[in-house]
Amino acid sequence: MPIDYRAPLDDMQFVLHRLIPISTISNLPAYEDVGTDLVNTILDEAAKFANQVLSPLNWSGDQAGCVYQDGAVQTPDGFKQAYQQYSEAGWMSLAANTDFGGQGLPLSLATPVNEMWHSANMAFMLCPMLTAGAIEAIEHHATPEQQAIYLPPLISGQWAGTMNLTEAAAGSDLSAVSTKAVPDGDHFRIIGTKIYITYGEHDFTENTIHLVLARLPDAPAGVKGISLFIVPKWLVNQDGSLGSRNDVRCLSIEHKLGIHASPTAVMAFGEKTGAIGYLVGEANRGLEYMFTMMNNARLAVGLEGVAIAERAYQHAAYYAKERVQGKIAGRSEKLPIVHHADVQRMLMRMKTQTEAMRALAYLAAAQSDFAQKHPEKAIREASQLRVDLLTPIVKAWCTEQAIEIASLGIQVHGGMGYIEETGVAQYLRDARITSIYEGATGIQAIDLLGRKIIRDEGAEARRLLAEIQACATDLSSSSSIPLQQIAADLQKAVQSVSKALDWVLHEHASNPQATFTGAYPLLQCFGFICGGWLMAKAALVSGRILQGDTRNAFALQKIASATFYSQAILPQVHGLAETVCAGASLAQAMQDSLTDLLR
Amino acid sequence: MPIDYRAPLDDMQFVLHRLIPISTISNLPAYEDVGTDLVNTILDEAAKFANQVLSPLNWSGDQAGCVYQDGAVQTPDGFKQAYQQYSEAGWMSLAANTDFGGQGLPLSLATPVNEMWHSANMAFMLCPMLTAGAIEAIEHHATPEQQAIYLPPLISGQWAGTMNLTEAAAGSDLSAVSTKAVPDGDHFRIIGTKIYITYGEHDFTENTIHLVLARLPDAPAGVKGISLFIVPKWLVNQDGSLGSRNDVRCLSIEHKLGIHASPTAVMAFGEKTGAIGYLVGEANRGLEYMFTMMNNARLAVGLEGVAIAERAYQHAAYYAKERVQGKIAGRSEKLPIVHHADVQRMLMRMKTQTEAMRALAYLAAAQSDFAQKHPEKAIREASQLRVDLLTPIVKAWCTEQAIEIASLGIQVHGGMGYIEETGVAQYLRDARITSIYEGATGIQAIDLLGRKIIRDEGAEARRLLAEIQACATDLSSSSSIPLQQIAADLQKAVQSVSKALDWVLHEHASNPQATFTGAYPLLQCFGFICGGWLMAKAALVSGRILQGDTRNAFALQKIASATFYSQAILPQVHGLAETVCAGASLAQAMQDSLTDLLR
Repeated sequence: MPIDYRAPLDDMQFVLHRLIPISTISNLPAYEDVGTDLVNTILDEAAKFANQVLSPLNWSGDQAGCVYQDGAVQTPDGFKQAYQQYSEAGWMSLAANTDFGGQGLPLSLATPVNEMWHSANMAFMLCPMLTAGAIEAIEHHATPEQQAIYLPPLISGQWAGTMNLTEAAAGSDLSAVSTKAVPDGDHFRIIGTKIYITYGEHDFTENTIHLVLARLPDAPAGVKGISLFIVPKWLVNQDGSLGSRNDVRCLSIEHKLGIHASPTAVMAFGEKTGAIGYLVGEANRGLEYMFTMMNNARLAVGLEGVAIAERAYQHAAYYAKERVQGKIAGRSEKLPIVHHADVQRMLMRMKTQTEAMRALAYLAAAQSDFAQKHPEKAIREASQLRVDLLTPIVKAWCTEQAIEIASLGIQVHGGMGYIEETGVAQYLRDARITSIYEGATGIQAIDLLGRKIIRDEGAEARRLLAEIQACATDLSSSSSIPLQQIAADLQKAVQSVSKALDWVLHEHASNPQATFTGAYPLLQCFGFICGGWLMAKAALVSGRILQGDTRNAFALQKIASATFYSQAILPQVHGLAETVCAGASLAQAMQDSLTDLLR
Repeated sequence: MPIDYRAPLDDMQFVLHRLIPISTISNLPAYEDVGTDLVNTILDEAAKFANQVLSPLNWSGDQAGCVYQDGAVQTPDGFKQAYQQYSEAGWMSLAANTDFGGQGLPLSLATPVNEMWHSANMAFMLCPMLTAGAIEAIEHHATPEQQAIYLPPLISGQWAGTMNLTEAAAGSDLSAVSTKAVPDGDHFRIIGTKIYITYGEHDFTENTIHLVLARLPDAPAGVKGISLFIVPKWLVNQDGSLGSRNDVRCLSIEHKLGIHASPTAVMAFGEKTGAIGYLVGEANRGLEYMFTMMNNARLAVGLEGVAIAERAYQHAAYYAKERVQGKIAGRSEKLPIVHHADVQRMLMRMKTQTEAMRALAYLAAAQSDFAQKHPEKAIREASQLRVDLLTPIVKAWCTEQAIEIASLGIQVHGGMGYIEETGVAQYLRDARITSIYEGATGIQAIDLLGRKIIRDEGAEARRLLAEIQACATDLSSSSSIPLQQIAADLQKAVQSVSKALDWVLHEHASNPQATFTGAYPLLQCFGFICGGWLMAKAALVSGRILQGDTRNAFALQKIASATFYSQAILPQVHGLAETVCAGASLAQAMQDSLTDLLR
């Protein structure tokens, strides 16, 4: 049976208080109440809820899955009750607007909380996560009347929300959306079928508010002709009470590799008379509205990667400490497998990569808070540029790495890892979706290269690399040999990544196909160097802690983790950067080798 | 629904006839009949069987799984009939000894045939694969009487065989085997429980011959006290007819991540009176006998990696050619996703890595044939050294890469890849076991470093690198710019890997933990450089083909594939080699970072 999850509060608090640090967020006018005590109290409470309520349902939910019958979906035993507890405890409202019942806390604080919950039960958390997306869309783009009707019950958790984007012929390319919205008085009739709708139908709440992308009759073709609509499952009366059933129906749910407890629905809108929908914001700006929300959604999915990686690590570490097998060179007694060098290598890969990803995800959340709430416009803008650059990296790199880490977790278990009852195979199956939904890795790589690097001629990317270089310089002046070594490795990595960056900036105009051939390796370069940077920064901070407290165990471990990261993980950037710079030759080779597919 | 599998005969024949080439095997006295026509006829027939009989059952078998009831196991619909067809067509006997009804064909020829079958239906093929292991053990170590009784029905496929090694406390470390063998007249009574027994119970055959590791009462502790026994499910009379049921029972089958159609059994020996078992060879030499067979078993599992990777590639390539989505820069018409640079990158990674792995697996098989059958002792010995070196590389590298390739196959499919009905998630689930069973990756890495590199002070490893360097030199004298580039990349890779090799040879005596920290990255180095070498060799051969046939499509594609491999995959060796050389620092960091687990 799967082991318990324990929130890694030590590392979370280190990142929040020492690396970010969250005190800079508390200085923002909107967040003056967010002191250290409040932060720690919320983390403790969230950890309890994750450990005691959500985690015990993770594996049973995976095994039971959801059951579809006649348009209704039954979630696994215990999930509905857990959702009620979740709502009643006020967790849904943590980061939501205070005008509608939210607690208005910063994303920096919601992020570790969300990490815990995704570690504890990712399939469960997809419902609150999608609801948060719907809340955000309505907060930013709906009329005050719409906000008054829909936000309070969504924020309280009384209702749930969904995002309806994908259609059979419109996946990564939403310009192909064909669902229709026909004007009908003060509302619209929505007609079309949406697929892959997370929690499109479920038994958690009395009502579900679907946000749906559809096309008006006179809309221009392509991305500029898509509008956003609120389509409630049950229509809502003026007084907020539920009216009649809308013409929306769940046709089926998917049989998936993982996240079995999260129903992925095919949704039919308007099979009979057309589902009643209400336009959000202006017509034809639906995709733009979606994109403003997508940053947060993408950061949230990247965080799922951190969360699954953490849980996979905890499980593997537990097993490696318990399982006695084989002889250790130079030791006569029987010892657990954690004493084998290769098991240590696997655990360290899992541990340090997860720590690096956590630091990056939390940093992006903090930058997002600055971008929203800093009183100075220049800082808001600078922070937004940084969030924009980091978002595809957090999304794609953390999720791709999470898949590898979950797979390593199986490997640490040997044959036991392959048996479903052990519970670690679930992490791989669950993690596998994270690099696909909310924009697959290839889309993130194109976003990073095209919109975030080429568009500003590399300005923000160079600012980031300069900051990383400055960190290396700081470290190199340390008197500690390990810190000097980390500095040297980071500096070398900056050189490789800079070379790759220069190459794409120089080549993209004349040879876009060659440049985009390197989009994913370039994203990996940025992921690993950001990871190396934040681990180096953690080592720097730890070095300072040790000056006052020479035996501080956490600081000693962190420096060791940073050393491992910079020598066993970071060196990947060199080969990846070479691959980026070989783009022209690779693009030609791909054309010449895939001739049978390209004709 | 999953697409059909089509055996990649073009690439198989290229590797067999042009790279290995198999004509060198046909020159061996034992294989004089193995001409080009015979090879091609067998490949064609095997391809038909794989495509028409085994492949259609792959996905249905995965979905249905096996059913356990009262000690019996029912395999999925169609599997029993397919096994009968398989046996009747004589496929079981392909590489078996002609003295007992086998066809005595070389492993070089059985290898592509096995690849096809594992691509078509890996879960099915595990039964013949384990039976082949049992045949090999009996051929090499049993008495002529035992051989006469057991080999003909095993080789004909009338009976099946299993290997019973693992116990709950004896996995990677077989020295902990505790199953007892008590002498009882001319036989033994076997008492103990074995786990993870592939096809330990099934409905394919009338009898199953279990090969079981157990310990005699007076046996020394550890690996030198384990003996090997034949334990038939049904006892066999002198005339070969079946006698009474032996005291062997399947207690349960596992609920696994993948290979659902292959029953993984818990086997109880001797619950009542002790299962009747017959000693194979000498007492206390069981583990040694197992190890002589394990080379072939490990090569076979490495080949499973090639096979799953090939099928994942075929499926992804098919989808990428069919699925229309998104706009391609510079093209106005709607085009399939294969025209996107990042999709091409993924497909090329899958394709070229699979080709490299295939070449390496076939090469190892050819070296094994030389080691067995070459008339000159010096060549037999040299070939054996090469097989010994290559075996852990083929096993671990091909399987680890297969997992990544299967995962990439899901990624190419986007959301569709996560839906089980698409069929590509199965490849990841099935592939995931290959890096675990028959010696997990960590065990292979230790084997490579300890037994295959350090033991002969790197002599064989250096011979291999010298051969790779010679290939680079050959290529560099080509007039073709792409071939020169491949040569330069290969040469650079040789330098990095040589550096890592020198480091471990220099350090291992003084710092074994540091050296073994680099065991897995070193294995990866050898995997990628062997892949780069064989792709370079393929480019060299293709260059020669083009001299006579300037438009030869296969040769043009192969050179493009080799270019991609050497610039997008091979550069990984540089970072990996750095990590190997950082072993001392990493070993210390692991100790310091994992203190909570190591105390």
